[in-house]
Amino acid sequence: MSATARTRQAVQAYHQARFGGDVAAAAVQLADTFTFQSPLISSDDAAGHLAGLSGFLQVVTGVDMISELYGESEATLVYDVHTATSVGTQRTAEHFRLRDDRIESIALIFDATRWHPIMAAAGHAGLASA
Amino acid sequence: MSATARTRQAVQAYHQARFGGDVAAAAVQLADTFTFQSPLISSDDAAGHLAGLSGFLQVVTGVDMISELYGESEATLVYDVHTATSVGTQRTAEHFRLRDDRIESIALIFDATRWHPIMAAAGHAGLASA
Repeated sequence: MSATARTRQAVQAYHQARFGGDVAAAAVQLADTFTFQSPLISSDDAAGHLAGLSGFLQVVTGVDMISELYGESEATLVYDVHTATSVGTQRTAEHFRLRDDRIESIALIFDATRWHPIMAAAGHAGLASA
Repeated sequence: MSATARTRQAVQAYHQARFGGDVAAAAVQLADTFTFQSPLISSDDAAGHLAGLSGFLQVVTGVDMISELYGESEATLVYDVHTATSVGTQRTAEHFRLRDDRIESIALIFDATRWHPIMAAAGHAGLASA
């Protein structure tokens, strides 16, 4: 299997597990050294990153993939996340960098404007993975 | 030249012309039917989209490319735009869709949170391309 095919396999497995709420299966795809950055939070702890997942999924009603592009050691997904919040649909880009076929960094890019009041109201509980 | 190579050529030419302030060279890469979406504005007019470019470039001090991935009829760039504004550095993703090797749509994804007060203060003048 080519490096690009292995990247695709790891990222797709992570993506499906993450939105399926399967934290253990998502964690398998992450490297031991892992960093996460988004407009709302950053983390250098894979377990901490995944800990907020189930709370976030409670407000997700669907995901429409717009684009998946894979390279030898990176990938970028673009998708719309439909949520049961006042935000509604959130256009999102997610860039993955891989080392030895495991994800060592994720940069999530989206417009956080309408999330700030929701996060404030929730005291960051439950939505911390965003 | 493969379709992916032609996509790369068109998107790189657009990217360089756009950040170089060469509106005419950027416009050549856009299809006659063109749509643009960002957190702040949307447009279905290539000329209108490019009209705000020079004002935006006045606040751009540099661009660091993080990722470029190309497919047969789409591409996604991830980059940091350094600006001479209170926003500072803006992490940005940009998804391009192409038809006949010309760009027919651009979706710009970034956290607009800190741009809203700047846009309001500027009366949207000059920063309309963001």
